[in-house]
This record gives sequence, structure tokens and C-alpha cells, in this order.
Amino acid sequence: MEMVLAAAANCTGALSSNHAKTFLKSRRSSVQMRDCRSGPAAPLAVSSAAAPEVPRPVRLGIMGCGSIARKVARSMLLVPAADVAAVASRSEGKARLFAADNGLRSGTRIHGSYEALLDDPDVDAVYMPLPTSLHVKWGTAAAERGKHLLLEKPTAPCAADLEPILAACEANGVQFMDSTMWMHHPRTAKMRQLVADQDTIGDVRFINTMVSFLANEDFLQNDIRVKPDLDGLGVLGDIGWYCIRGILWAVDYELPKNVVALHHPVKNQAGVLLACGASLYWADGKVATFHCSFLTNLTMDLTVVGTNGTIHVTDLVIPYEEKSAPFSVDSKTNFAELSTGWDPHPSKHVVTTDLPQEGLMVQEFCRLVQGIRDAGVKPEGKWPGITRKTQIVVDAVKASIDNGFESVDVAS
Amino acid sequence: MEMVLAAAANCTGALSSNHAKTFLKSRRSSVQMRDCRSGPAAPLAVSSAAAPEVPRPVRLGIMGCGSIARKVARSMLLVPAADVAAVASRSEGKARLFAADNGLRSGTRIHGSYEALLDDPDVDAVYMPLPTSLHVKWGTAAAERGKHLLLEKPTAPCAADLEPILAACEANGVQFMDSTMWMHHPRTAKMRQLVADQDTIGDVRFINTMVSFLANEDFLQNDIRVKPDLDGLGVLGDIGWYCIRGILWAVDYELPKNVVALHHPVKNQAGVLLACGASLYWADGKVATFHCSFLTNLTMDLTVVGTNGTIHVTDLVIPYEEKSAPFSVDSKTNFAELSTGWDPHPSKHVVTTDLPQEGLMVQEFCRLVQGIRDAGVKPEGKWPGITRKTQIVVDAVKASIDNGFESVDVAS
Repeated sequence: MEMVLAAAANCTGALSSNHAKTFLKSRRSSVQMRDCRSGPAAPLAVSSAAAPEVPRPVRLGIMGCGSIARKVARSMLLVPAADVAAVASRSEGKARLFAADNGLRSGTRIHGSYEALLDDPDVDAVYMPLPTSLHVKWGTAAAERGKHLLLEKPTAPCAADLEPILAACEANGVQFMDSTMWMHHPRTAKMRQLVADQDTIGDVRFINTMVSFLANEDFLQNDIRVKPDLDGLGVLGDIGWYCIRGILWAVDYELPKNVVALHHPVKNQAGVLLACGASLYWADGKVATFHCSFLTNLTMDLTVVGTNGTIHVTDLVIPYEEKSAPFSVDSKTNFAELSTGWDPHPSKHVVTTDLPQEGLMVQEFCRLVQGIRDAGVKPEGKWPGITRKTQIVVDAVKASIDNGFESVDVAS
Repeated sequence: MEMVLAAAANCTGALSSNHAKTFLKSRRSSVQMRDCRSGPAAPLAVSSAAAPEVPRPVRLGIMGCGSIARKVARSMLLVPAADVAAVASRSEGKARLFAADNGLRSGTRIHGSYEALLDDPDVDAVYMPLPTSLHVKWGTAAAERGKHLLLEKPTAPCAADLEPILAACEANGVQFMDSTMWMHHPRTAKMRQLVADQDTIGDVRFINTMVSFLANEDFLQNDIRVKPDLDGLGVLGDIGWYCIRGILWAVDYELPKNVVALHHPVKNQAGVLLACGASLYWADGKVATFHCSFLTNLTMDLTVVGTNGTIHVTDLVIPYEEKSAPFSVDSKTNFAELSTGWDPHPSKHVVTTDLPQEGLMVQEFCRLVQGIRDAGVKPEGKWPGITRKTQIVVDAVKASIDNGFESVDVAS
């Protein structure tokens, strides 16, 4: 895909969240348009009378060049509302290499420090795949410079550390969203519809999630996710995040009342979790269990069991393939005569998408940023809200592991 | 199916476990053959020279006419090695009705008491679908009369109560087997092969089982499984049994080291469990969780997660249909490039069977009984062994529920 929008080199305007723009971005032609955000002095509109108003793309800065950034950068190229305007790494060379390797347009600005990216006035929003231990500093800094923030998960080493980030986003009127990609897959929306449907699933009573992959020796020695000073939550913060988010998603984000960790968590020599799990309990009797591991074969299950029906998905976090994602539903299932079978059999569903789920995430993030930037819409509170809840439950599980698997209260 | 074998009315021989018989049973013709077990005085062999030696069918007595007995009786009619020789209920009328309703042959003896069935010398073995609280008395009595015992689950109200039954079986040289039907499905054998295969699944590290069905109001008020004096273990003994057996099956029957019940078990007003669960822990770090419920939609999941692979089955206890049963396997699953999918995708397997799984159970039970009765083979110790282990874990879960979800030690 051709990336043609080049921000004018002399643009220096600060973010204005209620300054509606009508600049068009064309990805299909090679017309170069001036992007001008310098305020009332340059209110240029391109063919505003002839064409429908298409919001100007969001100028994204990628802050950190880890492997997950490659996947997200690729998806940004697929989203018309997104423009990768800049890339930053601790070394300019690494950022330059990332831009070249990932097909970013030639005008993409290369920054040799995170500070420089945040100082770049032609960046509206930051995607931040840094190690978690750096999130408080840089996430807060980004928000304080008026950059909208798409933050990799786990969003903070603990719930308390998330608060300054969210507070800075709120104070500066920028959108916060964590990078939980599967949330944005249309399958998730479809399943949500069914989970909420009293007739199909009824009252959700039990949920189980299992997410694991078999990390190789290099990962177990060197990945940031096994380093206490980088991603100290280990597997719990990485794929346990998905388990917990999946459970919260299934109960429409009602926090559990208490959490009890499973025994036998596995830690590495530095004390970082490699496998663990927990049971979660709600005041009305709902129960959930989850298990996450870096030490077993790729598994991504979410099962939601309600009074009337059951939903099974076995590739929750990353669908088996990009463009279609399956799940199955049992609803009002009876036994066949003499309990010799099931009636009806489960129904299989497949939800297709043209954009991969991370592209849909970027698209949704950009849509929200455009609303804020161009039309004075307020940031969407749902996203920081569910991030906070996820992080609170992560904390509770960690606390239960640390206190010898005692129950830890969550919601009062 | 025509049932034509009629036992001679004057047969009075006691059981002889090493007295080989060569009587043929024909199910395809209507020839009536004399069944003679009265010892050396009447060693009649029918066409023993001309035909291959087919063991004489096992003369089964059905002791109790509950709904599960209908299903098992039907399967007995499909098994050449089985002959339903007698039916007993507390009322002769009920037993007679059962025989008629279930297509039992006209010569089937009808007994108006359990005692009478056990006194019937022409019954080799008893299938006992009585309420659990009656198992100690009648299971023990059956074994003491030399009857082989196919006992419905849960086999006893607690592990201690199972012991006299198993001891009586052992002392009297009769086969014991619990009626866990899915154990006998060829799918189970196929999955066992894969679970045991280091290359396919590797080391089993995590197991989850969920079994539930939505009981209707009549069940919740009147079924024996909600009555403290009949099946006092409630859902834990009924379908929790399958969860626990499934877990033990997955670890090749190694007992867990300890068990912790999930919070929020649901009990009825009489204190009988309607929904509950637990986590199980092995010394080597294996972990399992299960949940069982009478209060949610039909669900029968077993997931086994190993270092190299994962097995999913979602109709473990009763396959969706009688003659074929599916499961899926992920093995050595990698992420596709950029973690945008799975490579390979899970493989789907379907295992077919001509006999329903309960028929295969009856067939296996009869095969063992024939070996004991006709060829002096010793009873197969595997079956009482896994029953005992299942019952021990049931006990531990119950103890953990009763002690406020504290850990309960199982294996020392």
C-alpha cells in the first residue's frame, strides 16, 4: 500500500482537540497534501465542497521497535485513518532499520530517542510497545505532551502505577487505549451479542480461559517478559492479561469480589512468573478460572457457560487465520432420547474480516482520536476503564500468589 | 434384536470361576439352548467340535429400574456377550414394566426385591443403578453372593464406604467395574494414545474439565441426585465424577497431592451440592481445574494441555451422536509469521463405533466376567483401582468445600 501523506516540514501547531479539520488524505493517488495544524492562520481545506468530509489521518508515532511493533506497524499501513508519521528507538539506527524493514513511507521521521518523538509536533498519537517498566514514565510523558496513547499490555507493573498514566491522559484530554487486539475483532462483538442475549446464553455462571505458548530457550533466557526489571509480571502480565480480560469481557466488566491464585505457579530464577492461574468469584455466585503459561503448547481458550447456553472459542487471542475466526455455541441443549446424544448439536460460526484485528484496533483508536482532535468529542472512557479493571485483577492474582494462595478481595 | 437364550429353570449351580464353558449362544436363530451350570454332572457342550468356542453370555441381573438403567439395558441387548437374565425392583410390577418397556426377552426373570435377584443362581453379574446410599449394602451383598458387579457412579457416599464393596469383590473373586461409560469409547482410547505420546502432547501440565446440564424444576425437587439420603454427593458425585475421572485419566491415574475446592459452591436447602469445582495439584507441578453444575447448559469439556500439544474434547461424557465422536489436537503449534495466525491449525479427529459406549462398557465387563467364570482368569484390578482413586478425590473436594476451601491433602 502506498503511503503518500507527508506532513509539512514546518508544521508546529500544538494539539487542538476541538479544531475540526477537513483535510483529505488520499491513499490511492500520489497527490501530496500539506498537513497544516498551525491554527487559524492556515485553515486550508482541500476540495471540501466537492468531496465528503473524510477526517485527516491520525499521525502516529511508534515508540519502541520490539517485535510486536512490527505486527502493529503492518496493520497501520492497512488503515486509511492511520499514518505512521514517526518511529523512535533508543538508537536512530534501530528506528531507521525498523522503518525500512516494515515498509514505512520514506517521509517517516526517525527519532533516536523517545523524548524526540514526544517533542515531534506532527505526531498526534503514540503507539507504545515499550517494556512495561517504562510505561509510567513514558506513558505519562506522552499524555502530558498531548499525545493520544495506544499502550501495549500489561499497561503497568501494578494497578497503582497505571493511575498516573490514566490521570495524565484524562488531564490532557487524550485518548487512552491498551493494545488488546482481539477486543476489536468482529468475532468478539458477535460473541458479546450472544453472551448478552438472555435467550441464547442466559445468565453467565462459569467462565474458563487458558492461554499458553511454548517459549523457546532464547525467550526464557532473554525476552523482556521474563526480566523482573522490564516486564516483571511475566506470564501473568503478558498472556494472563488476555485470560483476565476475557473473563471480564464475559461478565461485562463487572469486577470480581475476590480472587484466589492457583497453587504451583512456576517462576524463573529471578522470580518472574512463567505459569500461573487463579479462580475469580463474583457476589452473585459467578465463578471463573484461568491458567496461563509460557511452558505449554499454544492454547487460547475461552469458554463461557450460562444457564441457557455455552460459547467455546479456542483461538481467542490470535485467530487461527487473519481473515476468519470461528466459535461455537450450544444453546438450550437437551439430551437426545435416553441420553444417547445431544439435541441440538453445537452451531459453528465463522466471522470474517478484511482488516486483521490489530488493524481494527488501530482503526478504532484513530477514529476516537479524530473525534477528539477534529470535532471536540471527549475521549472514550470505556477503554481506560477496562484497562484499569484488568490491571486491578492482575494485581489481585499477583497478591494471592505472593500471600500463599489466600483469597484477595477485589471489589468491595 | 431377538433374545432367545433361556436359562434352564432348574439350574442351581454356584459360581465357579475356573470352570470353562463352551456353550454357544445364538442371537440370530430362535433355537433354545439349555444353560447348565450345575457342575460336572451336566457338562453339556453344544457343537463344541464344529464351531469355534464362543464363551457363553454373561447372565446379567439389572438391580434397580431408574432411568439410567433403560439406557444400559438397551445397550445390553446389543452385546452378544450379555444376556439380561433378570430384573429386580422393590416392586415386581415395576420390574415387569421395565422388562416390557425395554424389550427384554420373555424369559427374563422378574424379581420383586433386590434380595431375590441376588438369590437367583442363574445370574452371573449384577448391574446396579441404585441410589448411592444403597450401594454399600447391596454392592457388598452382591459380591458376597458371587455376583460380578457393574456399579453406577458415584460408587459410594464416600471413599471409606467404597472399601467394603471392593473388599467383598476381591474376597469373592468377582469383577468390579463402575459405570463410567465414556471410558469405554474408542475415542477415549485414541486420545489416551495421543496423551501418552511424548511427541504429540509431551508432558501434561494443565487439565481443565467442565461438565454441566441444566436440570429442570422437577429434577431439582425430586431427583435422587438432589436428595441427601439417596445421592448425598449431589452434582459432585454425579457429573463431578466425570470431571475428576477425566482429570485422573489424563494423568494416567496418578493421584493429586492436594485439592482445593472453588468458592461459591451452590447447595440446595438440604445441603446437597448443585454446582461446585476444585483445583488439583500434583507434586511435579501439574495443575487441573474442574467445574460441574446442574444449573448451566449442557457442557462436557475436557482440555489437556501439554508441553508439545493440546487436546480438546467438548462432548466427553456423552458424544454428540452415538456412532461418532470428535476431538481436536494441536501439536507443536507455532505462530504464523508476525503472529498473525497459527501454524499448523488444529487437526480434527472423528472416532466411529458401531456399539454405543455403554454397550462397549457392557461388552468389556462381560469379557472380564467370562474370563473369570470360564477360564479362571483373575478379576481385572484396574477398574476397582481407578474407582477408588476417583472416589478419594471426590472425598477430598467435598472435604475442602466443608472446611471452607482449605487445601486437602490426597496422596502422601
